[in-house]
Formats: sequence, C-alpha cells, structure tokens
Amino acid sequence: MANGLLIMLPGPTNVPDRVLRAMSKPLIGHRGPEFRELHERIIENARYAFQTEGDVLVLTCSGTGGVACAIENAITPGDKVVVPVFGVFSERIAETARRVGADVVEVPIRWGSAPRAEQVAGALEGAKALCVVYNETSTGATARELAKLCELAKEAEALVIVDAVSILGGDELPVDKWGVDICITGSQKCLACPPGLALLSISEDAWEAIRANPRRPFYFDLVRAREFYEERRETPFTPAIPLFYALDEALKIIREEGLEARIERHRTCARAFYAGLAAFGLEPYPEPEWRSNTVITVRVPSDVDVEALRRAMKEQYGVLVAGGMGKTKGLVIRIGCMGAITAREVLITLSALGASLSSLGHEVEMGEGLEAARRELGLA
Amino acid sequence: MANGLLIMLPGPTNVPDRVLRAMSKPLIGHRGPEFRELHERIIENARYAFQTEGDVLVLTCSGTGGVACAIENAITPGDKVVVPVFGVFSERIAETARRVGADVVEVPIRWGSAPRAEQVAGALEGAKALCVVYNETSTGATARELAKLCELAKEAEALVIVDAVSILGGDELPVDKWGVDICITGSQKCLACPPGLALLSISEDAWEAIRANPRRPFYFDLVRAREFYEERRETPFTPAIPLFYALDEALKIIREEGLEARIERHRTCARAFYAGLAAFGLEPYPEPEWRSNTVITVRVPSDVDVEALRRAMKEQYGVLVAGGMGKTKGLVIRIGCMGAITAREVLITLSALGASLSSLGHEVEMGEGLEAARRELGLA
Repeated sequence: MANGLLIMLPGPTNVPDRVLRAMSKPLIGHRGPEFRELHERIIENARYAFQTEGDVLVLTCSGTGGVACAIENAITPGDKVVVPVFGVFSERIAETARRVGADVVEVPIRWGSAPRAEQVAGALEGAKALCVVYNETSTGATARELAKLCELAKEAEALVIVDAVSILGGDELPVDKWGVDICITGSQKCLACPPGLALLSISEDAWEAIRANPRRPFYFDLVRAREFYEERRETPFTPAIPLFYALDEALKIIREEGLEARIERHRTCARAFYAGLAAFGLEPYPEPEWRSNTVITVRVPSDVDVEALRRAMKEQYGVLVAGGMGKTKGLVIRIGCMGAITAREVLITLSALGASLSSLGHEVEMGEGLEAARRELGLA
Repeated sequence: MANGLLIMLPGPTNVPDRVLRAMSKPLIGHRGPEFRELHERIIENARYAFQTEGDVLVLTCSGTGGVACAIENAITPGDKVVVPVFGVFSERIAETARRVGADVVEVPIRWGSAPRAEQVAGALEGAKALCVVYNETSTGATARELAKLCELAKEAEALVIVDAVSILGGDELPVDKWGVDICITGSQKCLACPPGLALLSISEDAWEAIRANPRRPFYFDLVRAREFYEERRETPFTPAIPLFYALDEALKIIREEGLEARIERHRTCARAFYAGLAAFGLEPYPEPEWRSNTVITVRVPSDVDVEALRRAMKEQYGVLVAGGMGKTKGLVIRIGCMGAITAREVLITLSALGASLSSLGHEVEMGEGLEAARRELGLA
C-alpha cells in the first residue's frame, strides 16, 4: 500500500516493507569491504534467480538501460539482428539495434500473440543475434516458445538476447538450460525491488562477441564491469548504493521463498486473475496460449472509457493499474501480477475493477468473478 | 554518521537524515500525477542549483553516466574534441569521446594544476567541443579559469561540456552566465543525496548539435528525455523513484539554505581544512591557486603508508577518507568537503588524521592544527 494505494502496475510494483526500509540504512563507501561483501551476495543470489552459473552484473539504470547496454556491447555496425516485433518493447529493441548501426530484420508478429519458432527460423541465416522480448509488457503476451527459439538461434550460430524485464523471477526462465546468451531484467518488476537497477546475465559466447567490439559504450562497458567485479567485487562507477541495499533484501526474499514456489505463486495468481476476468465477461487481450502470468492485459468493454475506469479504481478503491501502450492504448488495462503478489492483491484488484465497471454503468457479476478467483487461489 | 562512520569520501558523502528517510516513502507510479508533480519540483530546484533558465534533465545513472550521455549525444564520429587532461576524470572524458569516434585532441596539463586559457586556446580551431573537468576529483584541483575557457570556446564556436560532478552546489558555477553548454553533476556529491542520479543542463546551442546527431544512444537519448519532460513531466524510462524522492529533499535543502550561503560554507570549511593541514606540516597535492573547495587532496608524509593511515582513521576514529587515483595513488589521501559539510566534520576529520599520523609514528602539532582550523571556522 502506497499513500493508501495498491500499486498494481506492470512495474514499478509493490515492494515489501523490509526492502523499502533497507534503503534508509546509512551510506557506505563503494570502494570498501562493506560494499564488496554486499555486492558479492547480490551477485550470488542473482545467479540463483537467473538459474545461471555464468556471469551476472548489476548496473545503475532502468531495465531499458540494461537492454540498451546488452545491444550496444554485443552488436556492431552492419551486424544482422533479427527481432520478432509484437509490441512496444520489441519495437524498442529493434530501434536500439538500429541506433548502433545494425542491419535489423524485423519479423512482424500479430500483437496479442508471440513468435513461433517457424515464424523466426527463416530469418536467422547469417544473423549475429536474435533479440526476443520474453514478456511483452505492452500486450501481456509471453513468448512461450523461447526455448525453441534459443535452439534455432544456436543452430544458426546467432546469439540470443532476451529482454526479460517484466518476467524474470515470476515465470520459468532457466537461462543456462535454455541457452540464453544475454538475459536482462529490471529491479522493479518480479524481483519486487524499487526501480533504478538492471541485472544482466552474460554467456561465454556473448563475452566473445562483446570483447571483439572495439567501440563499447563507456558507461555501459560490460568488459570493464566484469573486470571490476572479478578483481575486486566493485563497480566501475559509483553504484546507487541504497538500491543495492534494497536489491540485496529483495533477492534474499527470493532465496527464502525458493524460485520454484515463487513462480508457482505467480502462476496461481495469474490463473485467479484470468478466471475472475472471464466470470466478469471480460476478454484478455492476448490469445489464450500466450497469456502472461506477470502482466494481465484485459480489454475494457467498449461502453467504458479506459481513463475513467482507471480513475475510478484509483480514486474510489485505491488501486493503481496501467492503461495500454502503442496499439493497446485506449483499449485495455494492464495489471501487474508481480513480485509480492498474493491472493489479497488479486481479490482487491478484481473487486475494485468489478465495482468500478458497475459504477460506470457496465454491470458485471461481481460475486461470480470473485468466487472464480477464490477457487483458483484455493480459497473456495 | 554511517555504521558509526563519518563518510568523508569525495563522494558518496554524508546525507542528511531527512534525505535518507525520504527514500522509504511508498512507491508511486511514474506515469501518474504524483510523479509529475515531484519531477517538476525537482527540475525547478535543479535549475536554481545550476543557475540556469535553460533545460535541466535528471537521468537514472551515475555521474559518469551523465558525462557519457552528454558526449554520446553532442559528439559524432570525426568531430574534433579538445580535452585538457589533468587527472583521471579528464582522461575518462577523452576516452568517452574516443569511444564515439571523435578526433580527440588532449592538452596535457600538469597534475595538481588545472588548464589556463592560453594552454587551451591554440587547440580550439575547428573544434566541435571543449570538454573540461571543472573539479578533478583525482587530484583536488579546480579549473579556476573555466569562465575564460568558456569565452575562448565561444569565440571558436565550440561547445563547452563541463564535468562538474564533484563540485556543482559547492563552488561557484553560474552555468548561463559563463556560457556552459552542457553541465553535468551527480547526486552524491555537493548535492548531499545518495548516488544513482545524474543531472544535466543543456543550452540551446547544445540542443542544436544534439538534434543533428542521427545516432543518439537509445537509453541516453536527450531529445527523447526532453520531449517526455516538456510534454508530460515524465521520464522516457522508469526512473529510480526512491532516489527522486531523495533528490527532491536534497534540492529543497539547497533552496532553504540558499546557494550563495552553501558555497560560502564549503569555502569556509575548505579554508579550515587547508589551514589545519598546513599547521600539521602537510602539503596539499594541488598548487595553491587551483586548490579545490570540495575535494581536499593532501600528500601523505613519506614515512607513513597511505593504506595504514586510512585504516587507522577508519578503525580507530570512524572516519572514512579516500586514497589517490591514477598518478596520486599511494601518495595522497582525498577528503570530501561536500554537501552537508560543517565545522563538526572538519574538526573530527582533522583530529582523526592528526591522531592517526601520530599513532603511526609521524608526530604532528595536533593543537596548532585544530586551532588554525577553528580560527578559519570563526570558532576561535
């Protein structure tokens, strides 16, 4: 609860008090033993969350900064880069790669669905990298064929760069097992930490490409960041120390809960959301097989204005949800099902949504919706 | 005081409790009215600190990230860029410009001094930009001729990009009056806020160059950041909200104190440091005319090991100071005289330094040193 508000955005999301409180700990120097110990623990716990034995680095920037960093390190002018585009964030990756001078091949995918292996296979020949958004925050669609896409990319000897900003820690993503070369997430989504940090895992194949890039960006130079970590557990530039405190706490919580249990909790809450929405007679934006467990995107009935609905949910019930982005703007609301999500937040959000729709003249079956959600949550 | 430690580093520095506490306020959405109001107040107060009527933008990254952002926006491959080099941070700017493909002309300046107008004048012909570190954190020298350097650059029609990371808010820097085109600072230095944010001011001439750059970096695209601010008081990507809370509080404190009084306080504390050090028989690293009011760099007597001295100050007296960087490594200690600095911190630091030197076998005139400092502080 924030200012009496429940933050049900697809990031930033609700942060446990324990994480919030960690930020007001006194500052420490970033070149001393206290920071090194904190940093090492963060990296070890982040490896657990990424399911990787390889390198993980933490950067002071947003999740998009982390994605840009990956592209600017691994891609050089003229490289062929394949990007399946099915929402705003995949458009962003394509644009980021164009900015570094890459030859970007976009594979257009219907919004509300996600790339199938056969849609991408034909484009991979001669590609330096395949860039995939694992969870399209703008549509609520998850690229469920990611493991297959990784296999195809390996066959084509292309790197796989995955934007997992709105999903890592909330759904299945075994980085090493699937062979993701660079995986990026943000602190403020399923990790349940405030915004301001990006985390990246980097495979040996990715390092090879990165080291061969003669013009890595200065602030985002991953080789330098790795050297500083390996040699002294430091960052090249001053890190956002309070956010490192928060991330440390957030990752400890993930270890305490266990990744598998955490993913299962996200799935259960997502199922409850979808069941409740269906009983309300509302239609999720994504097609069934691609529906995200971390970003619930649902069409707003045509007789209701999206902004009026969001306003009612916020002002009357203290529940904050997001509108659409790009093609989904004005069509949908998007609900974060992330991080600290529990039955409580699902039920409050569904209640606020149902009641707000009713107050705007669109009657829904409130009791049935909540009952359907409670069944999925094991409460009925 | 942090963990019982006084953070006398040249950044991060001590942060008032009020600023620290602001970070644990509940999160808000970054696309809502609460954030917009916060953001607008931050920008207005930052303009006051920068003494500019022009644009100021806040980015989620370190101070070095802010400097890299400025270079990557304003400089394109082949541009001639002049960099007076007199320490580690000017070397960093030169390297950053080389990474974007600039034709970098370094003007070597003796470490411990700072560029004079006549040393730079000859190099400016045909230059796209002059990049100056106003305060070399690695040596404790301030480029006191910055106003003259700006004039010269204007005559040569070159932009002036100033790294003011370790000085803005702690010494004279009227951005508009001197004609600085892009001025960059970090949150964790003289603004007395935790690390993780960079602030940049941008002149109309700078915007012209930036807009003409066809390949601005994606995350650091200043045109996009300005559009988001102008159109809706938002940031293009998720900002580090807790750090925005902290910066808001830190800038309010600057307005309450008044910039002139704040600068005068830094000067007084710096004079007290230098007077105390002189009475101890210690020699500042920079030559007298360039000595910084925000980073006090002093040679460690040859019979004392720098690391042993820092350890003694930390372990016996709870005072954290930095060692050298680059050519000053192993030769000096560097003391932050920044942000929340008052007589109290000056006297504790001098006491800890004097006592630690004595305990390491290098006797100093403790009483005389503290007396000299107290006189400058108006306490004797």
